[in-house]
Amino acid sequence: MAAPVSPLAVPLPPLAPIAGLRLGVAAAGIRYRDRTDLMMAEFAPETTVAGVFTRNRCPGAPVEWCRAQLPAGRARALVVNAGNANVFTGRAGGDAVHVTATAAAKLIGCPAGEVFLASTGVIGEVLPVERLTAALPALHAGLAADRLAEAARAIMTTDTFPKAATRIARIGGREVRISGIAKGSGMIAPDMATMLCFLFTDAKIPAPALQNCLARGIGGSFNAITVDSDTSTSDTVLLFATGQASHAPVSETGGVILRDFSRALAAVLHDLALQVVRDGEGAEKLIRIDVTGAVSPRSAKRIARAIADSPLVKTAIAGEDANWGRIVMAVGKAGEPADRDRLSIAIGGVWMAREGTVVPGYDEAPVVAHMRGREISIAVDLGLGRGQATMWTCDLTHGYIDINGSYRS
Amino acid sequence: MAAPVSPLAVPLPPLAPIAGLRLGVAAAGIRYRDRTDLMMAEFAPETTVAGVFTRNRCPGAPVEWCRAQLPAGRARALVVNAGNANVFTGRAGGDAVHVTATAAAKLIGCPAGEVFLASTGVIGEVLPVERLTAALPALHAGLAADRLAEAARAIMTTDTFPKAATRIARIGGREVRISGIAKGSGMIAPDMATMLCFLFTDAKIPAPALQNCLARGIGGSFNAITVDSDTSTSDTVLLFATGQASHAPVSETGGVILRDFSRALAAVLHDLALQVVRDGEGAEKLIRIDVTGAVSPRSAKRIARAIADSPLVKTAIAGEDANWGRIVMAVGKAGEPADRDRLSIAIGGVWMAREGTVVPGYDEAPVVAHMRGREISIAVDLGLGRGQATMWTCDLTHGYIDINGSYRS
Repeated sequence: MAAPVSPLAVPLPPLAPIAGLRLGVAAAGIRYRDRTDLMMAEFAPETTVAGVFTRNRCPGAPVEWCRAQLPAGRARALVVNAGNANVFTGRAGGDAVHVTATAAAKLIGCPAGEVFLASTGVIGEVLPVERLTAALPALHAGLAADRLAEAARAIMTTDTFPKAATRIARIGGREVRISGIAKGSGMIAPDMATMLCFLFTDAKIPAPALQNCLARGIGGSFNAITVDSDTSTSDTVLLFATGQASHAPVSETGGVILRDFSRALAAVLHDLALQVVRDGEGAEKLIRIDVTGAVSPRSAKRIARAIADSPLVKTAIAGEDANWGRIVMAVGKAGEPADRDRLSIAIGGVWMAREGTVVPGYDEAPVVAHMRGREISIAVDLGLGRGQATMWTCDLTHGYIDINGSYRS
Repeated sequence: MAAPVSPLAVPLPPLAPIAGLRLGVAAAGIRYRDRTDLMMAEFAPETTVAGVFTRNRCPGAPVEWCRAQLPAGRARALVVNAGNANVFTGRAGGDAVHVTATAAAKLIGCPAGEVFLASTGVIGEVLPVERLTAALPALHAGLAADRLAEAARAIMTTDTFPKAATRIARIGGREVRISGIAKGSGMIAPDMATMLCFLFTDAKIPAPALQNCLARGIGGSFNAITVDSDTSTSDTVLLFATGQASHAPVSETGGVILRDFSRALAAVLHDLALQVVRDGEGAEKLIRIDVTGAVSPRSAKRIARAIADSPLVKTAIAGEDANWGRIVMAVGKAGEPADRDRLSIAIGGVWMAREGTVVPGYDEAPVVAHMRGREISIAVDLGLGRGQATMWTCDLTHGYIDINGSYRS
């Protein structure tokens, strides 16, 4: 945790309490010393839940647990620890999950299946579950409504700043609030590029409708970011709706009444996803990549991702070098339809290459100035069709090597 | 070129002349000063040629030229420059290729289509072809049989040592020689992970049979290495057979008479491919990844590649951290069939994780000692089937950032 705060950090927004949500944090000593590493949330009865998870084929035990509980759509608690991911821990991993859920359920008086879990940190070491369960009773006794900021801090690992976002939405004319916290700065890549993200709302929405809203919001947020192309075994996004707001009823399928809610949820997710990129390990620049003119949206996204994941593009940007040759390379390596002689590339809004070669009389000065900034924009037009996509990533710097060459030691 | 020589460098082997091959180098001032940057080879009449090229969808003009000439199967010359890749240079790129081939053909007295070309270096800048053609006459006049080592040096870009390999093979009881040179240290990834590699033999082999031998040798060599997952626009491997050796005739399809030749060619290719990884930008450790027990060889190769390309695995190895958790992550992210609870992982021959968890009583000491060495071996057994594959890569260090954050400046 000794890394300096990312130069791209943004401050925590003011976070109002959400009816039906109480939170708390504790220093359970799972791995770190002198910091909180455990958070718990308790939800009002009738709370519904939606979730999306990593597509990694070797997921952690907590991911398997959540997947199994999700179809029932009900939640009373969330317990999250930092410092140990409880991944690749064999039978002990499943046991730890069971013990934790049972302990939390007992404190709350609910079935264990209504307790959702997440763990983040080192992979392959057995979770010291007894430290976690030992800390739970006092933690539960101290739950309070105004602890979102503390919760955002307790779930950090290599993060250099806590991440939260909040929006007001209207459902049938009544206001509801959506607030979320997230952690993550490495091992971030689609699909389901998180790390961990937990969202809370006082809206009253049946689980299937809630799941639809969440799934739609992920595409333009956590599935549109990448830090290092590595996909975590633990990526988890959970959305809890406590049902305490008094608005018109929402059906199982949701529909038009949730239009504003969906939009606000997408904004919260997008805000949090970009904060994760802003805290990308070693990041000094936030990079937005817009691909247009591809043969399809899917093709556009693959090309955007090839650019976003290219170490050569990312190191060039770290070096403030407007090296569009490497962008051409990355477009070509995506394996998607591309015609070198129709390809155009812009950096910072300046089209420097058009139709396969440098623009005559190209003036490098504004591009050089743009490259010196914190936020870099790259646009690629394939000139083939109408497919478009946007992705966000960060540059690849010495900081990434520093952080990841010595994480366990 | 200021980077220190890779600690994994190997010396150039002694390189005997090859009958029917004359070579030369020149300092044409294409980009670099005070070094050679242009090489030319002239081949005896009747020389046959085989080639494989990048699968990047935005290839350089020289790649397009070679692809177009290859079906005729005949070569009299090879001209290669370093410092400028002649990629994404629009119409000027095609023109430069034509001018160069025509100039070389005139000196030799052959059709332009029998001149093969390659360029390596910066992408997106117009090749100063007049410097190249100005240097050709003197270069051609000075061609000699014993210049392979100089040629290996003239084609370097960010390479820190020249790369060559040589083997003797038998065709029908008579000896032939195969020698090759290569360059490349970044933008290296399958498929067709080279950069540039040129092979020469005095064997007399029809072009179709030669192409078969080359295609077979690529799978276990240049298509089994990766440095940074980026795929060059210029990857080119060309094999020239001058036909000066006196051995039994080889048919168009080759067959069993070429068994030893194929084996020796594969060995030369493998040797050169590993030298490229040893010179991976910033590389301090050579990493071998063996995947077994996958559902198919193709699946095994994808998993091996996911491990080899993972920035988190590569930075962990740079930090001498036996972080098998990141290997689990990389296996899972490949998207191939994997069962976490059947997965076993070894580092340096020590099986540290078996069937989904750490081996009881696992003694870290020999693994820690192995991690401190220059050559790291990782083995992953999926426990699912009989598919296996091997890939080589290098670690990801501060050196990579140094080299690629300031390449153009």
